[in-house]
Amino acid sequence: MSEQAPENEAAAGPDGTPETEEVFGLSDDLVGAVEEALEAGWPAEVGKLVTDLHAADKADLVESLGADERLRLIDILGAGFDPEVLPHLDAAVREEVIDRLGPERLARLLSKLESDDAVDVFEDLDEAFQHRILTALPLAYRHVLQESLTFPEDSAGRLMQREMVVIPSAWTLGETIDYMRAAEDLPDDFYDLYIVNPKHHPIGKIPLSRVLRTRRPVRLTEIMETDLKKIPLATDQEEVAHMFRQYGLVSAPVVDEGGRLLGVITVDDVVHIIEEEAEEDALKLAGITEIDLYSATLDTTRARFPWLVVNLATAILASAVIGLFEATIEQIVALAVLMPIVASMGGNAGTQTVTVAVRAIAMKDLTDSTTRRFIGKETLVGAANGVLFAALVAGVAWLWFGSPMIALVLAAAMVVNMIVAGLCGTLIPLALERAGIDPAIASSVFLTTITDVVGFFAFLGLAALFLI
Amino acid sequence: MSEQAPENEAAAGPDGTPETEEVFGLSDDLVGAVEEALEAGWPAEVGKLVTDLHAADKADLVESLGADERLRLIDILGAGFDPEVLPHLDAAVREEVIDRLGPERLARLLSKLESDDAVDVFEDLDEAFQHRILTALPLAYRHVLQESLTFPEDSAGRLMQREMVVIPSAWTLGETIDYMRAAEDLPDDFYDLYIVNPKHHPIGKIPLSRVLRTRRPVRLTEIMETDLKKIPLATDQEEVAHMFRQYGLVSAPVVDEGGRLLGVITVDDVVHIIEEEAEEDALKLAGITEIDLYSATLDTTRARFPWLVVNLATAILASAVIGLFEATIEQIVALAVLMPIVASMGGNAGTQTVTVAVRAIAMKDLTDSTTRRFIGKETLVGAANGVLFAALVAGVAWLWFGSPMIALVLAAAMVVNMIVAGLCGTLIPLALERAGIDPAIASSVFLTTITDVVGFFAFLGLAALFLI
Repeated sequence: MSEQAPENEAAAGPDGTPETEEVFGLSDDLVGAVEEALEAGWPAEVGKLVTDLHAADKADLVESLGADERLRLIDILGAGFDPEVLPHLDAAVREEVIDRLGPERLARLLSKLESDDAVDVFEDLDEAFQHRILTALPLAYRHVLQESLTFPEDSAGRLMQREMVVIPSAWTLGETIDYMRAAEDLPDDFYDLYIVNPKHHPIGKIPLSRVLRTRRPVRLTEIMETDLKKIPLATDQEEVAHMFRQYGLVSAPVVDEGGRLLGVITVDDVVHIIEEEAEEDALKLAGITEIDLYSATLDTTRARFPWLVVNLATAILASAVIGLFEATIEQIVALAVLMPIVASMGGNAGTQTVTVAVRAIAMKDLTDSTTRRFIGKETLVGAANGVLFAALVAGVAWLWFGSPMIALVLAAAMVVNMIVAGLCGTLIPLALERAGIDPAIASSVFLTTITDVVGFFAFLGLAALFLI
Repeated sequence: MSEQAPENEAAAGPDGTPETEEVFGLSDDLVGAVEEALEAGWPAEVGKLVTDLHAADKADLVESLGADERLRLIDILGAGFDPEVLPHLDAAVREEVIDRLGPERLARLLSKLESDDAVDVFEDLDEAFQHRILTALPLAYRHVLQESLTFPEDSAGRLMQREMVVIPSAWTLGETIDYMRAAEDLPDDFYDLYIVNPKHHPIGKIPLSRVLRTRRPVRLTEIMETDLKKIPLATDQEEVAHMFRQYGLVSAPVVDEGGRLLGVITVDDVVHIIEEEAEEDALKLAGITEIDLYSATLDTTRARFPWLVVNLATAILASAVIGLFEATIEQIVALAVLMPIVASMGGNAGTQTVTVAVRAIAMKDLTDSTTRRFIGKETLVGAANGVLFAALVAGVAWLWFGSPMIALVLAAAMVVNMIVAGLCGTLIPLALERAGIDPAIASSVFLTTITDVVGFFAFLGLAALFLI
């Protein structure tokens, strides 16, 4: 790190107590200094500020610059552009950067990356651009990229790196160490040795820490772990991430249909997947497909539009239910005042349940027996909170409008809607999952539609029956 | 794995196409077989089914059993209970298991765990129980656990393990390898060697893959990485996770105030934190504190209650706004029918913005300049979608109620509320963050309160002005 990066700057919280110190990362000061140097047109100064940053911090810097400054930075860095920055960039920003770099420079940069990172950048390009890159690449590298595109998106095949350390099963530890000391083409970092049989099937792995504790004459097959979690090429990355998390893996072998070892997936790639998958659920529940911080306004507007259309349709449906009771509302306007409370409480209680259900499904926490218990429990929780809140709102309504009958009707509708919220909050995500639809993306629309419709219908319907 | 675990069972999707195969994990069949063996009282069969499972799968099994079966399983396993299961268990289930084990057995199990896992289990116990465990532990281990409690909760100090490989800076690679081959007390798995100076300050680390590629006479100081990301003891775990993610770390050193090396944090522990932190935001946005799948109904009801109280208060506030316009609604009941549409669209659009903002804040993506651009963009997106949806709903309202004036008022209120949603969807989380309040937990209440109040007020207010 350059001395400009104040990596040990201590921050004080708003109440004056010292907060956790920022031990790393890009500071606003550094971003400001780079912006200044770019505007002043001091390429040497820019270079000095940027060179020693970690690639991930450089990517953050590129993202936080304005569009013009970003292009100027790329031009200034020229041949010194760090290829490792590319996989760290947000998709929208990466597109801009790649456009500026052009296919020939991009091809040169890609060939310096490990294969999984190169694929990560390459797969997002449009076809014409991919073609121009391929022709500019060395043959062996071209083959790897082309083959990777034949694997399904978000699969283990796309995630794996081809660089790995593979050892024949007949070797001793001493032979292995001698080979590694002499070999030129080992990956930069690796954590396990993979042992293969003559058919190139992985039959075991040895963590490097075990290699280091073993004496030279020992055969690899004597010390290898044979309980390998082999990942088929087509496995979804979510499944891969779950496996790494569940078993605390640092690397795992990827095999083709014939069981041959094709590559390895390492934990640093999986960390991003784990984060993305957990984050995706949060986003999908709100009807967003990605953190679109760097997308253009028009793209963001367009991306959010469909979800809002769906919500508009459900809002109109709820309004239609209210429309059925126009005559009732005309007689007792208090109903119009109170009715959103029932719908809103049902929606909120149901959303709590849906959120738990969606995460539990994603984490594969729901077996047959836990599912049954979960549905029962959530319905009971809905009923219990329903009774509590029925008492609360009935009191408020009675005080407000002085009518015990309105209060009673409100209370009854509240209990009904909260039970429905608990029941549907579990059943909807489970049903969607069974139907092969992602529960994170569709559950909350279905749920709030139901709690709105049931809420308005129960409240206004009971009012029409008992108050008129 | 025992032969009962169908780890390579292929599943077919609902449309008959083969889905990604389940390559690992606990099957419903195995859970069923264990339940059967438990009910039939066949301890040998239970033992056979369970023994070869990975600790994480055993923990899943324990969680998916009913309360009685769970206790029976613990009794059957007896001294064969796998200590590694404990850190994998959900908090509510772990409490039950620990109660059954009792302090003496728990102490014995804890002493077999690595220190970070032992602390993870130990810190959740109540004080009396902690005390009874401590007295039953070997002295050295007791000291480690006691000291860990002096570090802040969720800090690097709690997360680190004490077991690590520390090498004096004067050694050569050959001496180091000889030491490791002879040493008895090395951790099971490690990924980096840490080099310390005579004051026990970490001055560098060497990935094991580099150790293996280096010849024996080379000095460690010649090949070590000196760009160490040292983590102060009190650093929050979220910060630690961010650092591992940002720099793709596999291990990092933890230092005390004096800069002395106290322990290391490894990526397998951080994977859980990363997932929890990303997940927490999703949960907090819905007003939930944890995935309470295994908590008792009463505990869950109680945990969800406060959030629903807050939502009730805001729902009543929104109703009070409607109450201001009772006279207007009495004259035009169509207003009561249409008003939820404005509030609902504002709430949904604002929630999209809040979700992006909360994640961007958590990921530290917002620098000064990106923040300004983000606020401007979200307000524009709100305005753009506001105009689009204003046109849509105005058309619907005109057809429905045949009144162009009502349609116009609805359209105007929609534009106002969507702009407010975009603006407040960014400003609220940012303001909460500055005020030291977790934006994930409070943003959505504030937001929907504002979009409800503004939505009702704009629509009914404009109606009162122009339609009466």
